[in-house]
Amino acid sequence: MATTLTLHPDRALPADPATRGLARRIHAHTAALPLVSMHGHVEAQVLADDVPFGDPAALLVTPDHYVTRMLVSQGVAPHELGVRGPGDPATGPREIWRTFCTHWNLFRGTPSRFWLEHELVEVFGVDVRPGAGTADQIFDRITAVIGDPAFRPRALLDRFGIEVLATTDPATARLEHHAKLAADGYGQRVIPTFRPDALVHLGRPSWRADAALLAEVSGIDTGSYDGYLEALRARRAAFVEAGALATDHGHLGTDTTPLSRTDASTIYRDALAGDVSAQEADAFAGHMLHAMAGMSRDDGLVMQLHPGVLRDHHEAAFGAYGPDRGWDIPVHTEYTRSLRPLLNDFGTDPGFRVILFTVDETSYSRELAPLAGVYPSVRLGAPWWFLDSPHAMRRFRESATETAGFHNTSGFVDDTRAFASIPARHDLSRRIDAGYLASLVVEHRLDEDEAFETATDLAYHLPKRAYAPRG
Amino acid sequence: MATTLTLHPDRALPADPATRGLARRIHAHTAALPLVSMHGHVEAQVLADDVPFGDPAALLVTPDHYVTRMLVSQGVAPHELGVRGPGDPATGPREIWRTFCTHWNLFRGTPSRFWLEHELVEVFGVDVRPGAGTADQIFDRITAVIGDPAFRPRALLDRFGIEVLATTDPATARLEHHAKLAADGYGQRVIPTFRPDALVHLGRPSWRADAALLAEVSGIDTGSYDGYLEALRARRAAFVEAGALATDHGHLGTDTTPLSRTDASTIYRDALAGDVSAQEADAFAGHMLHAMAGMSRDDGLVMQLHPGVLRDHHEAAFGAYGPDRGWDIPVHTEYTRSLRPLLNDFGTDPGFRVILFTVDETSYSRELAPLAGVYPSVRLGAPWWFLDSPHAMRRFRESATETAGFHNTSGFVDDTRAFASIPARHDLSRRIDAGYLASLVVEHRLDEDEAFETATDLAYHLPKRAYAPRG
Amino acid sequence: MATTLTLHPDRALPADPATRGLARRIHAHTAALPLVSMHGHVEAQVLADDVPFGDPAALLVTPDHYVTRMLVSQGVAPHELGVRGPGDPATGPREIWRTFCTHWNLFRGTPSRFWLEHELVEVFGVDVRPGAGTADQIFDRITAVIGDPAFRPRALLDRFGIEVLATTDPATARLEHHAKLAADGYGQRVIPTFRPDALVHLGRPSWRADAALLAEVSGIDTGSYDGYLEALRARRAAFVEAGALATDHGHLGTDTTPLSRTDASTIYRDALAGDVSAQEADAFAGHMLHAMAGMSRDDGLVMQLHPGVLRDHHEAAFGAYGPDRGWDIPVHTEYTRSLRPLLNDFGTDPGFRVILFTVDETSYSRELAPLAGVYPSVRLGAPWWFLDSPHAMRRFRESATETAGFHNTSGFVDDTRAFASIPARHDLSRRIDAGYLASLVVEHRLDEDEAFETATDLAYHLPKRAYAPRG
Repeated sequence: MATTLTLHPDRALPADPATRGLARRIHAHTAALPLVSMHGHVEAQVLADDVPFGDPAALLVTPDHYVTRMLVSQGVAPHELGVRGPGDPATGPREIWRTFCTHWNLFRGTPSRFWLEHELVEVFGVDVRPGAGTADQIFDRITAVIGDPAFRPRALLDRFGIEVLATTDPATARLEHHAKLAADGYGQRVIPTFRPDALVHLGRPSWRADAALLAEVSGIDTGSYDGYLEALRARRAAFVEAGALATDHGHLGTDTTPLSRTDASTIYRDALAGDVSAQEADAFAGHMLHAMAGMSRDDGLVMQLHPGVLRDHHEAAFGAYGPDRGWDIPVHTEYTRSLRPLLNDFGTDPGFRVILFTVDETSYSRELAPLAGVYPSVRLGAPWWFLDSPHAMRRFRESATETAGFHNTSGFVDDTRAFASIPARHDLSRRIDAGYLASLVVEHRLDEDEAFETATDLAYHLPKRAYAPRG
Repeated sequence: MATTLTLHPDRALPADPATRGLARRIHAHTAALPLVSMHGHVEAQVLADDVPFGDPAALLVTPDHYVTRMLVSQGVAPHELGVRGPGDPATGPREIWRTFCTHWNLFRGTPSRFWLEHELVEVFGVDVRPGAGTADQIFDRITAVIGDPAFRPRALLDRFGIEVLATTDPATARLEHHAKLAADGYGQRVIPTFRPDALVHLGRPSWRADAALLAEVSGIDTGSYDGYLEALRARRAAFVEAGALATDHGHLGTDTTPLSRTDASTIYRDALAGDVSAQEADAFAGHMLHAMAGMSRDDGLVMQLHPGVLRDHHEAAFGAYGPDRGWDIPVHTEYTRSLRPLLNDFGTDPGFRVILFTVDETSYSRELAPLAGVYPSVRLGAPWWFLDSPHAMRRFRESATETAGFHNTSGFVDDTRAFASIPARHDLSRRIDAGYLASLVVEHRLDEDEAFETATDLAYHLPKRAYAPRG
Repeated sequence: MATTLTLHPDRALPADPATRGLARRIHAHTAALPLVSMHGHVEAQVLADDVPFGDPAALLVTPDHYVTRMLVSQGVAPHELGVRGPGDPATGPREIWRTFCTHWNLFRGTPSRFWLEHELVEVFGVDVRPGAGTADQIFDRITAVIGDPAFRPRALLDRFGIEVLATTDPATARLEHHAKLAADGYGQRVIPTFRPDALVHLGRPSWRADAALLAEVSGIDTGSYDGYLEALRARRAAFVEAGALATDHGHLGTDTTPLSRTDASTIYRDALAGDVSAQEADAFAGHMLHAMAGMSRDDGLVMQLHPGVLRDHHEAAFGAYGPDRGWDIPVHTEYTRSLRPLLNDFGTDPGFRVILFTVDETSYSRELAPLAGVYPSVRLGAPWWFLDSPHAMRRFRESATETAGFHNTSGFVDDTRAFASIPARHDLSRRIDAGYLASLVVEHRLDEDEAFETATDLAYHLPKRAYAPRG
């Protein structure tokens, strides 16, 4: 059945008519605000080179783990989606696209559905619902659109109204794409984020290579723990120089217990010798969160903590397809005890800022809102990953606001890999916040002028403030 | 105060008028679908012998732990409800029924209230609210109804529109009632489910007797671990032969770490000798979940996992009244790490299917939906036990759908012990799903035709598919 | 911008018009009921001495950790709020008040906002919104009001309609203020609560001093474990004599495993000698919960358990400002296994009553409602602390009612430190319950007469019953 595809102006707004009417006005008030994208995974090279996007499958299906995981969960083989392991056959873009459209029904009730509809209609001008019978027509339409120079990445940056876009870059990145962007006048607009994960997890097979690369890029010998710290500081300085505002840390746990310099040095030396236990590696990773907090206090980079995801749950899938293919699964995550060492040392320091994210929403009302509601250095990050969805965003506001208020949250952070979905994600967030604020007004818990002001804060001012340099 | 008792056609539908109007239409679309009861605890003998039900208390009060636990929590003695321990006096059915009716107010806001109202009105034609003043009148009415041949179990199977009813049977069950049902033409309609719990928990006092019974029933010597596995396989084959589609596993934890054959054999041998530690018994139970997954892959039985309940919390109550009397209490349950060994080995195998249930709803958005949303072998079971209630079912949809979609859930599974409550439970589930789907449409997140189709999937097609033989 | 401040009659009621209309009528039905304040932290001395309240800052800002923590989280220094550490400058009341009013926007969406608005309008007759421009005007207005004799504590007790007010008092309190209140005819109206925490945590630096004080106050030698128990029993008897109905226990964990008398005696002796490990101290604290349950069974005092808060998370803040300043953070809390020893021994005893509170709302549907829904001795306490807020109270009803019903909950317990906020807290709770009950009626899950009766139960009868002497 082919059906028209349109975006209803009231989508994702509350059902109650009075609430919806006000939510519509609040959303209208924020809909045209610039997009502040303080955390995400768009590659800097995409904007540095400004080359046209590839085919519809390469743009919307193959790299989007939200999409591929859903299709895989219903029996589609990864290679049918362009996710190839060793020995897998190649699949053409049109065939991938047909597979995707044929399974459109799987996305009912998911945020992917919301984002994709927004992209198809708003960005590509598609007006029919994806399905087996419309796949080719939509494929051709998108193909035509992305051939247009107005669809080049830099043009979209303007069209989308993106005021600032932060990329996420390994600590060892040479930042040459950011240098090119700066040379082209995009230095304030596309900024790097310092992500040292590969360097602090001593147990990873690639660690020694990464430590060597750190030495090479920084020009500082990482053969000792002191040199390693110095090299990290040097890289942070280079990131600051390139416009970075933040670091990003993706640990499984949230332990932040510092080690003595002697213990840290010993573990580091043993790791260089290839002789480190899992327990020592974990202790060192927790220690480094504490050490990085100290560096943040010194250089003003805002610390982002994204814990609680067990990466690459299925080992064979990881072996065949590599990371970030949808096989990462959250775990129960503890914050109150784990963050205590870090917060005792830096949590009230005016020079320090940490933004806490979670994929364990049980921690919102129990731990994260109480922490953010008293520690001046803590902000509570926007709902992340699996929680960046209508119901989950609403639960976040309902669980966190009563203890943390609005001003101790980060405002919206899109965290996207899919450049073309950035406007859809901001729009959805603004709609959910408009609905929440409208509910507060309709229940006479907030005045209307306050709701409008807060909506602007959440969409624009709070992320700007949360990531502003400290000190 | 005597008050009339009626069922409002809009019960359990959302309050918002636009949402309710659509929900009413969606519910009407599924209300007459056959009932697919893929998991429950009705005794096969009830249908094999097709004898009339007993008195109202024996039908609706004494065996229903939802009912007795609530009355006990407010100071009613178990024997007043027909739950007798050693030395307890007997209580007559009419007296039990009066106690129950007098405490009708305790069930306000509970699903028991919803189910019981449905049964009283729809099945028994009662039209007054239970209370001290109406107890006898209702008792007499039900007594009259259940004397009618049209109220025999097999007649009700037709009247209720039950297409298939799965019982739950110990692995050592001889399945003679199912044989009789098959001989009478009910072989496809009333099917057994293989539940081996008693055989895999080596630490239980009854284990050695159960292992001996397994040998007797299977005709295979269970004096060694290999024989034990062979006997289990033989019983599974007998269940498959008798029409079984699934196994059921009710562990406290969810560990699935396999042991080496040597270690498993040693623990098994020690257990036979009566010398097994609690830790070894736990390790063996976890190992057997992994082993059973392998057997499911081989014989196509769908694996149901129901973990996380600490059984018989109050030891004296267990001693006096036995199991399943309402003294089982959930615990925090971990899935991501615990299931990793099992899912690494079988989670992408086309021949394997596991349905995960929980009574710890914190795991929906954090672990279960992310797992079901990528592993093709995993389905997320319907809200179970304490969570099979209006608000909890709604929370399930709101927490799980955005990551797992609808198609990675099992559809409704009633899990009832109370035969006469089966229609009520399916009706409530269909109402909650209708309300949820209507909300998505009214919020313009789903089209109307999709909502109707999805409602039918959830009520009928998904449970059929989830329990369909694999491989 | 100065704006008027009013209280809307429909505040905190559901948005849906039909639901709101009924909720309004249910709320009206309970609005004038007396306030039953069975647990709180108002000082008995305030009522015994009946002296006028101080200035607005001392009344509404400095002692309210909900307020100060929010301001501190946004960079206000504690001393600017009158919370002074060593070396901090003094800040005048008017200046504190200005700081508070200037940051009024921080409280958007919080229960503090709801309570404070209620107090400002209802109690003090303020009619402008707090802000930089209105701070002085409001300060002057409140100053004038609290100078009026009609604003003395005992006058407010009448004006607020408080039928009974329980204070919380250390086990070593001499209860002289309660004696004075009794002499003045307030003996049944202002009652103490027995809180022995300082005496059961052997690892606290102050423990030996507290044990010595216990000996002094009780006149019983606490040099042995037996003497210590006898002294505790004597103090409980003194509290009973002074009108106490309950004890209160604020442990971090919920372990209730009893020790043998020998082991308990040994640990106690070692603690007196200053030689106790953290592990032994924890075991002793858990043991004492069990022992106190036994004493409750004997003397009829209702046991209140408030676990799961890590106190004084920030050590430097604790060092500077002391306890109860907003630096307490919840942790994940386990009940099912932890309470099993206590409930096995006392959970079905007609002489015992325990009320369980939590700040970990994940336990409502998983553990607390299932426990309260079967153990006759257990009641589930009202949402506590961070959860005493509109959304969280609603979540409590939606998560707990379906398994525990209404009658296994405690009814509302305000737990306030701020005397003037007691009516606001009861009013908010009654509104949320009215909204929840109205939803059940509108969804045809409850009859209207039942909703009215249940609303009265929750506001008045249930707390009276939950705290009524047992045995």
